[in-house]
Amino acid sequence: MYTIYAFPTPNSIKVPIALEELNLEYTLHPVNIRQGGQREPDFLTVNPAGKVPVLVEESPAGQPFVLSESAAILVFLAEKHGKLLPTEQIARARVFEQLFFHASGLSPAFGQSGYFQKLAPEPVPLAISRFHGEAKRTLGLLDRTLAQHTYVAGDDYAIADIAHFGWLWRRAFAGVDFDESPNVARWYESIASRPAVVRAIAKVEALAA
Amino acid sequence: MYTIYAFPTPNSIKVPIALEELNLEYTLHPVNIRQGGQREPDFLTVNPAGKVPVLVEESPAGQPFVLSESAAILVFLAEKHGKLLPTEQIARARVFEQLFFHASGLSPAFGQSGYFQKLAPEPVPLAISRFHGEAKRTLGLLDRTLAQHTYVAGDDYAIADIAHFGWLWRRAFAGVDFDESPNVARWYESIASRPAVVRAIAKVEALAA
Repeated sequence: MYTIYAFPTPNSIKVPIALEELNLEYTLHPVNIRQGGQREPDFLTVNPAGKVPVLVEESPAGQPFVLSESAAILVFLAEKHGKLLPTEQIARARVFEQLFFHASGLSPAFGQSGYFQKLAPEPVPLAISRFHGEAKRTLGLLDRTLAQHTYVAGDDYAIADIAHFGWLWRRAFAGVDFDESPNVARWYESIASRPAVVRAIAKVEALAA
Repeated sequence: MYTIYAFPTPNSIKVPIALEELNLEYTLHPVNIRQGGQREPDFLTVNPAGKVPVLVEESPAGQPFVLSESAAILVFLAEKHGKLLPTEQIARARVFEQLFFHASGLSPAFGQSGYFQKLAPEPVPLAISRFHGEAKRTLGLLDRTLAQHTYVAGDDYAIADIAHFGWLWRRAFAGVDFDESPNVARWYESIASRPAVVRAIAKVEALAA
């Protein structure tokens, strides 16, 4: 049984999607980041980095297992339950390539693009231009990949799709759309309509209701 | 036999370090990013994302295998050659947690901190403050981890150490030092003095000589 500390954020949503795809039981524990819940002492004892999501697995015999970083949680769940991550060497490398392209490229670009457009205390045109441009560039790279394959890492749905979906679900924050990314648009619809994804979104959105 | 497209950058250095630790043969192919080599058409056919490092493995029978994203290359090499990545579930999860903390947290913070301090066309105090602050915050989190363990993911040297080492090797660009991070300083010296690391740095620095 897993407990997931989460809120309706681009990174949080990834974990319940994976858990629903794997048919696993879990409890969601809300961390209201609009009210600074990620900086509360109670939460910082769970994750000193002050970020959601966090996975906690109770252990009957000892300390609970606590894991942060959404993509690390996806890898842990996929390996433990034997799904959503291929074992064949090259197909597997493609999944990791996309997981790290998401973590180091698309995700920070989307996050900073949104911050400087919507949250910064003053307008900074250079930063908006830099990060909005990088958000569009990384989206374009993903579109190029999805012009060649059904899913982001090849022909099979994998945890890399779940990772990218998180930020594309929140693309309005970053100020991007799919107008010039028809392949991403096609892929996004196929992911968003999966029953596991529909269930995960409903449960996570209820945390902020 | 591997070919690595590289330059003396924080991400490039990670791959030759892993190859040296694994005692594997490889050839370095320079991509001079000071002269825009990463945007040359020849290189963009290798990696459309326009980033180093890239690993290429020739195949006698077919297409060469081309892999981008430094951390994905580290995972590929570690799994293929059976070293630097534990198989035990929890120790392994800690390595991935640090790999993704590096990719999504420390690495972008260090990169943007350096960009806005040293490369931006105009001074942007808000962006400098934001990213320099985030670079120091992520370094502090790493110091806290290294106060508890010999290596970043536990008691064993792993690819997560190699990932973090890349950016800490180039910390001057980000405008950070180890004055308030004694545990990172201790760990850094232990990594920097490893014979494989010394050999990799010498070979990569020769690309820019």
